[in-house]
Amino acid sequence: MTYQVYDTTLRDGAQREGISYSVVDKLAVARLLDEFGVGFIEGGWPGAVPKDTEFFRRARTELDLRHAVLVAFGATRKAGVAVEADPQVRGLLDAETPAVALVAKSDLRHVERALRTTAKENLAMIHDTVTHLVARGRRVFVDGEHFFDGYRHDPAYASAVVETALAAGAEVMVLCDTNGGMLPSQVTRAIAELTERTGIGPERLGIHCQNDTACAVANTVAAVEAGVRHFQGTANGYGERPGNADLFAVVANLQLKLGLPVLPDGCLEQMVRVSHAIAEIANIAPDTHQAYVGAAAFAHKAGLHASAIKVDPLLYNHVDPAVVGNDMRILVTEMAGRASIELKSRELGLDLAGQPETLSRVTRRVKELEAGGWSFEAADASFELLVRSELPDRAPVRPFALESYRVIVEHREDGAVVSEATVKIRVRGERVIATAEGNGPVNALDEALRTGLARHYPELRNFELADYKVRILEGSHGTGAVTRVLVETADQAGRDWVTVGVHPNVVEASWHALVDALTYGLDRAHV
Amino acid sequence: MTYQVYDTTLRDGAQREGISYSVVDKLAVARLLDEFGVGFIEGGWPGAVPKDTEFFRRARTELDLRHAVLVAFGATRKAGVAVEADPQVRGLLDAETPAVALVAKSDLRHVERALRTTAKENLAMIHDTVTHLVARGRRVFVDGEHFFDGYRHDPAYASAVVETALAAGAEVMVLCDTNGGMLPSQVTRAIAELTERTGIGPERLGIHCQNDTACAVANTVAAVEAGVRHFQGTANGYGERPGNADLFAVVANLQLKLGLPVLPDGCLEQMVRVSHAIAEIANIAPDTHQAYVGAAAFAHKAGLHASAIKVDPLLYNHVDPAVVGNDMRILVTEMAGRASIELKSRELGLDLAGQPETLSRVTRRVKELEAGGWSFEAADASFELLVRSELPDRAPVRPFALESYRVIVEHREDGAVVSEATVKIRVRGERVIATAEGNGPVNALDEALRTGLARHYPELRNFELADYKVRILEGSHGTGAVTRVLVETADQAGRDWVTVGVHPNVVEASWHALVDALTYGLDRAHV
Repeated sequence: MTYQVYDTTLRDGAQREGISYSVVDKLAVARLLDEFGVGFIEGGWPGAVPKDTEFFRRARTELDLRHAVLVAFGATRKAGVAVEADPQVRGLLDAETPAVALVAKSDLRHVERALRTTAKENLAMIHDTVTHLVARGRRVFVDGEHFFDGYRHDPAYASAVVETALAAGAEVMVLCDTNGGMLPSQVTRAIAELTERTGIGPERLGIHCQNDTACAVANTVAAVEAGVRHFQGTANGYGERPGNADLFAVVANLQLKLGLPVLPDGCLEQMVRVSHAIAEIANIAPDTHQAYVGAAAFAHKAGLHASAIKVDPLLYNHVDPAVVGNDMRILVTEMAGRASIELKSRELGLDLAGQPETLSRVTRRVKELEAGGWSFEAADASFELLVRSELPDRAPVRPFALESYRVIVEHREDGAVVSEATVKIRVRGERVIATAEGNGPVNALDEALRTGLARHYPELRNFELADYKVRILEGSHGTGAVTRVLVETADQAGRDWVTVGVHPNVVEASWHALVDALTYGLDRAHV
Repeated sequence: MTYQVYDTTLRDGAQREGISYSVVDKLAVARLLDEFGVGFIEGGWPGAVPKDTEFFRRARTELDLRHAVLVAFGATRKAGVAVEADPQVRGLLDAETPAVALVAKSDLRHVERALRTTAKENLAMIHDTVTHLVARGRRVFVDGEHFFDGYRHDPAYASAVVETALAAGAEVMVLCDTNGGMLPSQVTRAIAELTERTGIGPERLGIHCQNDTACAVANTVAAVEAGVRHFQGTANGYGERPGNADLFAVVANLQLKLGLPVLPDGCLEQMVRVSHAIAEIANIAPDTHQAYVGAAAFAHKAGLHASAIKVDPLLYNHVDPAVVGNDMRILVTEMAGRASIELKSRELGLDLAGQPETLSRVTRRVKELEAGGWSFEAADASFELLVRSELPDRAPVRPFALESYRVIVEHREDGAVVSEATVKIRVRGERVIATAEGNGPVNALDEALRTGLARHYPELRNFELADYKVRILEGSHGTGAVTRVLVETADQAGRDWVTVGVHPNVVEASWHALVDALTYGLDRAHV
């Protein structure tokens, strides 16, 4: 029995207030989801959203997915328009994905009041669009929007929508709790009634839950227990209002609590890493208290039972944290453990297995830095530089030493805003002073540093600052807030790397990330 | 049929990392919970925790509860000690509460490995402590710690614990999912088995769930559907690891989805207020996306369906937000149309319905700004200033005019990083020059501006920058990236407002948001 793990982080999840992915972000998220082993990645609405059209275009050459099938999301044809003549449907085919998801109204009230068409025409729209896409070789999923409300209001009509979609050739009909108002017992009952009424087996149905009753995960699990094999969710439960079902909790519950093999082998333990990396890209602080993946998900206040916990951790943890890539925390420490650092280093080609002391030094250093707000989850290049600094034969060459810098931002009387930076550095024994302007303080600093290094390192011209992210981290007791900066740099060969800097001052944090970025790039150019 | 709404925010909820209530805090939280209409407030562990002893002492004279009964929490007597001689049990009586909750081991492995006593002695401890307290006039609840794990391991022993507690006079035996590993279907099954095996009716049982599978709310609801009448939870789901069942979501689900009258009349609509006030006291930022009570719980991206939402909000909301004291929010977002801007303005008390030209001007302006990277979806205060600028009789007063500013960030030779800002402004006809330092460029600018305005606007002292968020937005082809800054400001009355600024230069973007923040705050202070 196989399950369809269907992720909609990039489409429905992107509806969350404040999320705004670039195309590069979307490609990175898709890669992470594929590493986590999902079967389907809904990438967006090509044709309707220009950024999504671009995503699918670039995905064809830039994504090399091992587990997942890309899905284009769209709507059934417009009322009163032939499906062949509907540009929105054309856009779905132009995305050239193996699969397409179509949203279809399944609540008659929405058909009449929002779509402003008839019950009959809505069914024809579903039939026409599904057959059109299936005839062109697409696997088709139909999302029955407001299905549960619609079923409660008019079970015959909601059932007709399901029957029409499946008869037209849809692979799965997805029951959507769009308003998020369901409870698990109600989901169970509705699926039993629907399958009884239509004679359609639950294995042809899917489930999509929103979290407005704080039951999205439970509702999704209940649907799978009722026989549904296709379930949708988003990374970390991102989505509109209280969000979507958190795909991580759903998958972990199905796999670890019900023993259903929903992910390929070796994927479940990627959960914490993938969860945190996607949070970084979405620029949302990871939820410390998130089930399974949160830094506090397996944290125990030490004290009374500490030794009992140590002897018998499974009496106090509902699952072994390692199976989802998490750690048990007894004291208040950050996430990093020896095992994960060893694993990560090996991934970067640095084998620390035979060097327990180096591993201890690196682990200690990472813990110190993480306590100060650093995070290496999305900054492999900085992590590699850190590990290699502890390996005498692999230590990276530092291209310069800083004496001082100064950045000035002025808003002048005429309204012009100008930024200027001066750096004083030592490069290969020579003292260099360089000044440059930029469109902001960090850009000016980057330009000044490059100007100062240009004569000694002409290859710097090939590096480009591709992305820059800033996150303010609340301080813990007695300390102020700190700023974490992530810099993505790309070279002309299309390689890119991410570095991190942390400091109370955003300019200094950026400086750290910029210096790591150039150091890493030059080091690699010289190898 | 009456239900026991049992709150443990002040005891189990206080286990959440980072929470540390003073006695005054605890008294304030208890008052809020009582206003919300809970039946029981578990206030802490008197005798064991000095602050809790003090809480119960002061509660006797300082709390005047209308709905709730105070409960002292503690443990069964020590192994091998007579109950009369156990100081911990004495402490429970000394708290002089009408009710006491006793934690009792119900998993035999915990009895043997953590308590280090025998199966038989544990039952005797339960029996002795319950009868002792009941004889002294207390209502007694017994919390069966690790009940579900214990039942799975040894159903006969876990059942014996339940039978012993109830036979000794406990009013309710509470089944605790201490490790939080259960799913709703498993809770349902365990309760059915237990009642079948023991002949004890579910109305004598209670439920206490932790959220480690992200199912605590659903598990609690499932137990009530199985006949349990006593359920425990915490405000906002605060608690150890992923937390406890969120009492707000549980209560709203029971009352609104299952029609069970669990709260006194008039209490449900206190939910948002009580939730946010407790978050304030716990010093935890309210979760915008929390079910029912979050600021975004009923937020809809406007655009396409705004007009449909306006006509028929209940087609898009799973419940009427007003019944829990929340509001529907319309997010002013990309592709914002006239309808959503009108709706949003009305929400802010600005009726544009009769002013089609003003509405057009505002819509045009919002679209221009959004095309340039502005976003008002999280910045109501900036949106309000923008709308009011188009309304001659409501235009906000600008507290000053900028001539110029300059910010300098230096990394000095000794490694020190310093920021300094100078502003030149005109305030009420006077030219003011002010300079200040800060821990970063934006903080320095904020300080300099406040210094410059201080004499004319002493009330600025009451505003505090509460949060600061930065997002870099990729430019489209041919334009550079821009930076979007969100600033949250709070005043001493606990009100807060969010403003936005966008510019290629992060300092200038921050400046816009800071100026809006002060303008909005001063305007409101003077109304």
